[in-house]
Amino acid sequence: MQVNELGEFGLIDQIRKRFEGYYNSSVTGIGDDCAIIPKNKFVSNLVTCDTLIENIHFFKNGIQPEDLGHKSLAVNISDIAAMGGKAEYAFLSLAVPAVTSCTWITRYLDGLHDLARDEGVILLGGDTTKSPEHIAITITVIGSADNQNIKRRSEAKPGDMICVTGYLGDSGGGLQLLLENRKLTDEHERNLVHTHNHPRVCHHEGRWLASQQAVHAMIDITDGIASDAWHVARASGLTLLIDTEQLPLSESLIITSEKHDWNIRQLAVSAGEDYVLLCTIDPLECDRIQKAYYKKFGSNLFAIGKVKQGKPNVEIFGKGEKISVLSGGFEHFQ
Amino acid sequence: MQVNELGEFGLIDQIRKRFEGYYNSSVTGIGDDCAIIPKNKFVSNLVTCDTLIENIHFFKNGIQPEDLGHKSLAVNISDIAAMGGKAEYAFLSLAVPAVTSCTWITRYLDGLHDLARDEGVILLGGDTTKSPEHIAITITVIGSADNQNIKRRSEAKPGDMICVTGYLGDSGGGLQLLLENRKLTDEHERNLVHTHNHPRVCHHEGRWLASQQAVHAMIDITDGIASDAWHVARASGLTLLIDTEQLPLSESLIITSEKHDWNIRQLAVSAGEDYVLLCTIDPLECDRIQKAYYKKFGSNLFAIGKVKQGKPNVEIFGKGEKISVLSGGFEHFQ
Repeated sequence: MQVNELGEFGLIDQIRKRFEGYYNSSVTGIGDDCAIIPKNKFVSNLVTCDTLIENIHFFKNGIQPEDLGHKSLAVNISDIAAMGGKAEYAFLSLAVPAVTSCTWITRYLDGLHDLARDEGVILLGGDTTKSPEHIAITITVIGSADNQNIKRRSEAKPGDMICVTGYLGDSGGGLQLLLENRKLTDEHERNLVHTHNHPRVCHHEGRWLASQQAVHAMIDITDGIASDAWHVARASGLTLLIDTEQLPLSESLIITSEKHDWNIRQLAVSAGEDYVLLCTIDPLECDRIQKAYYKKFGSNLFAIGKVKQGKPNVEIFGKGEKISVLSGGFEHFQ
Repeated sequence: MQVNELGEFGLIDQIRKRFEGYYNSSVTGIGDDCAIIPKNKFVSNLVTCDTLIENIHFFKNGIQPEDLGHKSLAVNISDIAAMGGKAEYAFLSLAVPAVTSCTWITRYLDGLHDLARDEGVILLGGDTTKSPEHIAITITVIGSADNQNIKRRSEAKPGDMICVTGYLGDSGGGLQLLLENRKLTDEHERNLVHTHNHPRVCHHEGRWLASQQAVHAMIDITDGIASDAWHVARASGLTLLIDTEQLPLSESLIITSEKHDWNIRQLAVSAGEDYVLLCTIDPLECDRIQKAYYKKFGSNLFAIGKVKQGKPNVEIFGKGEKISVLSGGFEHFQ
């Protein structure tokens, strides 16, 4: 059997099964956005690690090096944010072909540096090495969070409202434009590609949501809302209902989808890399939290569905009708 | 300019200059085997990150997957050991082509698992992804050490004896056999290849040496003794004298070098990946420490040279004569 038949989640399960016997009660390992390592009675370290590989996660001519520097750190900060932490230290493994220009590297570091500075992350180490052909970037980020505020995928409760912190599908639309190799003809198309290449990271939003007791489960949207909701469903042992009519869609995505005849709901449901946060909230507190969130951040916390008792599933509704049921996720190897 | 002209250390310097302005007095960033992040008044976390890439660091048909699993973790534990720490948690980023067999991956995880179990390291997370062509492995290890015991490259003192914890050149000899694609014909050749593919890691030795006040500087030998001694020379602002007549050589390397007419001193001085520790020791205490080390570990702590006042240099002596002066190191990009 080859790894593409086993699949990404099959592989992760295999690794987890191999090592989880060694987990003691104090640490949390594979299975959430970050690992949790207790620091003291009050605070834990959160650790996450993400890899971006040329021609798999990006095309060198489809992204400015500054944007890649930004994105390679942003995806990690997003994992820390999704558990309610503050990202603190980064470790960069940068493998590049020997012919890579120093200008490209300087510009890559510019992007990494600017996001690190803005988000208060310090690059403390890593590794640099030659790669035979493709750029490979792995960043590990260590953050910290108050133990009482750490949010897990597994904490959704029946009746919870499901909310997201931003637009869905924009990054997928940007990727679509890049894959079709289109010349960008207006501001909307440029917005979508910018969202794909230079994702905004909900670092402050994550910490604020995590500080709210009424917020139960949290995760960041990396593989598409259907897939990431499935992780919450599986970890919490519940069914998540998502109403496609309520998915927040940007003006840029609406206009560009009409222009190119894209299925906008499909993009919003299944395209990845939006790096907004999904959380589930006590229904009695949801309205209060949405208002407080708007007051604090000047942007909406969009309600898009509900959690209910039932076997782990994600049920997608459109105009009141069930349009699909998902019990899997995005597969990197397929 | 291309990155191969800038060189590995030029690139690391560029990254360091970019980020060290953000280091506060409590953390230690780029410039030693590990970064140091204080945990509390008594203990710090040590963090290190190493990448192995197919066709750069290994050939898939030159190493058993179990050995690669072992080695990819061992190189990181060695960095923690070199600063006197105990390796505790590992994060694995594994990027493999979609056609990689599940058997290969299982065997890779076997090797990683066995070393992790033996050394008390827990795999807590990471990332798995597809790679277009070559396997790329990045492991980040977090360890801890008592603040008073952490050993740095920069702490060598004039007059110190330079010691190493094991044979030099064996790994380089093994690599030579692999590069020449030789059929291994005896136990000695197999020993050298085994040392290259399955390095022993001086985890306990490092911690014990670190607990000795008379041990001043420490580093692990990854790029060859000349190159790694240069890191100590540069960080400490001193000259290191190394006597090639005193370099510890294994019977397997001596016999195999004679057989293939290799320059054994050159291998022992400049070949890398032995992962033994180099430390500098107060000359008045060196004899006592060597004896205690032998009693504790049943193996020798070999004295191979001295530290003296002078500009940062490594001077290599053979039969009493200076045979070369080094003021650079191994370059991954050249």
